[in-house]
Amino acid sequence: MGPGPSNVAPSVLRAMSAPLLGHLDPLFVKMMDEIKTMLRQVFLTKNEMTFPVSGTGSAGMEFCFVNLLEPGDEVVIGVNGVFGGRMVDVAERCGAKVTKVEAPWGRIIEPAQIAEALKGRRPKLVAIVHAETSTGALTPVEEIARLVREAGALMVLDTVTSLGGCPVRLDEWGIDAVYSGTQKCLSCPPGLSPVSLSPRALETATRRKSKVQSWYLDVNLLASYWGQERVYHHTAPISMNYALHEALRLVLEEGLEARWQRHQQNHELLKAGLQEMGVAIASQPGHQLWQLNAVTVPAQADEAAVRKKLLADFNIEIGAGLGPLKGKVWRIGLMGETSSAANVQTVLGALRKALG
Amino acid sequence: MGPGPSNVAPSVLRAMSAPLLGHLDPLFVKMMDEIKTMLRQVFLTKNEMTFPVSGTGSAGMEFCFVNLLEPGDEVVIGVNGVFGGRMVDVAERCGAKVTKVEAPWGRIIEPAQIAEALKGRRPKLVAIVHAETSTGALTPVEEIARLVREAGALMVLDTVTSLGGCPVRLDEWGIDAVYSGTQKCLSCPPGLSPVSLSPRALETATRRKSKVQSWYLDVNLLASYWGQERVYHHTAPISMNYALHEALRLVLEEGLEARWQRHQQNHELLKAGLQEMGVAIASQPGHQLWQLNAVTVPAQADEAAVRKKLLADFNIEIGAGLGPLKGKVWRIGLMGETSSAANVQTVLGALRKALG
Repeated sequence: MGPGPSNVAPSVLRAMSAPLLGHLDPLFVKMMDEIKTMLRQVFLTKNEMTFPVSGTGSAGMEFCFVNLLEPGDEVVIGVNGVFGGRMVDVAERCGAKVTKVEAPWGRIIEPAQIAEALKGRRPKLVAIVHAETSTGALTPVEEIARLVREAGALMVLDTVTSLGGCPVRLDEWGIDAVYSGTQKCLSCPPGLSPVSLSPRALETATRRKSKVQSWYLDVNLLASYWGQERVYHHTAPISMNYALHEALRLVLEEGLEARWQRHQQNHELLKAGLQEMGVAIASQPGHQLWQLNAVTVPAQADEAAVRKKLLADFNIEIGAGLGPLKGKVWRIGLMGETSSAANVQTVLGALRKALG
Repeated sequence: MGPGPSNVAPSVLRAMSAPLLGHLDPLFVKMMDEIKTMLRQVFLTKNEMTFPVSGTGSAGMEFCFVNLLEPGDEVVIGVNGVFGGRMVDVAERCGAKVTKVEAPWGRIIEPAQIAEALKGRRPKLVAIVHAETSTGALTPVEEIARLVREAGALMVLDTVTSLGGCPVRLDEWGIDAVYSGTQKCLSCPPGLSPVSLSPRALETATRRKSKVQSWYLDVNLLASYWGQERVYHHTAPISMNYALHEALRLVLEEGLEARWQRHQQNHELLKAGLQEMGVAIASQPGHQLWQLNAVTVPAQADEAAVRKKLLADFNIEIGAGLGPLKGKVWRIGLMGETSSAANVQTVLGALRKALG
């Protein structure tokens, strides 16, 4: 019940233990097609270039920036937690000139801030984190994406923690590049990063002047393997793709709307239970994540001792705060399989015990 | 029985289906330590900086180059197949000036060629592929590594297909940076890339002037997660690490010497059986890989039809030739679990049938 990896359904674990197929085997190629189709359904997009990068969520972040950026490009990045900060670092390593739009940890990036940053600037892209895993805040994307499109820039979105846990509507919102992780609300083990590029973003990547600085993440090469040609690029993590295939099947079987609702309901149960104990959610009211709850550590409690006690006595992992929130919050994940009414009761009971 | 992924032991498949631990869980941290220790035993090295990169073998290749190279650096790279060519591409994307040392596909890189390339040059590093998966040739490393050390350069070695199937002796040979894959002779599913840096290589990476161009593969950041501090970097592929842990345990249980011998014996069985059919190994005599056999397609045979027949009628995958060897060779893998006397007989029998 930390910030990920979340629990995984037994059928997903079983899927990984199937014997290996070759990465060019016709059966595996068929499975790749099904994964792409299901990912499009989960991202709510028609983007042809939708597939899992062979690395964890951070590799997906790097995938977006190395493919879209060339040295000297201007970018605007929203920073309201660890992952916004990481995007700045990654973009700078691509030689980009970064303008940061900052908000205090736990608060969202406001559309007005983006509008302000776009005044007199023509950045190549604007990037924000949808669900900040480090703070539990969900930044609304629709209005920001509209501003970015009007400014002629590409909109890049981190959906590592949002995908599968709350609405993510790529095409409706007009997102150009997106990456996610498997180990949060998709409830698949970590190791792959679902990504999607709009035709506009793909054109930017294919028409660039310089080669993409990463061979491993170059979409121009990956397109030949994940596209119709099936040209060998690298040996895909076969077993991880088995797991993702089954995890996506479960997401679609439950239905996106039903899944989002389940995440919302269990968040509200947790919040109400915490309130009874006099404990509050730390992140901005009205923008609190359902799947990842940043919980204010009560003044009298020993933050680390409580976490240790939960792990030792109840076999429950919850996360510590990061950066300015270190020692100030616990992060309780209710993501994917982990988001259940029973788990909410378990963690509330355990927390009550641990707080004495 | 293609060029990878190889078959995987049932206990490795089972290991992957264990419930997920967090990437900072004390139990998982202990497992990380054990993986590092076992990798050192398999690489025959004392290098502290020995761990699996969270990507496939090609990510390990990129790891070595992005950490060691800065724009303008001179490098020498041996090219006698696909993977030497890939190293050139990756190094050039790091801004390096590459001198290629070429040999025909199927032949080895000779020490004299490296000596010649080093005349009047002071490259930062020299890189060669130990076992060329695309051609079935094994380049002897010891003499080349000596020349490279004398020239004051770092020695980088691709051991994707060699590790676990034939001798790889990092410290004895004086290798500075090495990467491998899990899906060849270690018989673990693809998804991780074991790497190791000598203290000299690590110093090069930590004292560089510019930031490593990849955040995901920056050893300066990874060292804090895989080292004593355990600082969160990215969410490690937990299940893949379970698999690698068990696969390495099996390698060490068998013993390196015994495992190499098994690979040699089954290669010789295959070679003798092919000879009886009038079919030869294509790669340079005296330097033929035990684990990956490039087999000359007989003049009268339809290369692709035979491969298809083997898959359809006997459920056996063998590999096609790449580049200049396309249509001219089949690649028969006898790697890790796949290297058995029974498999040799199966593929010989199936090939006899398919060749009619």
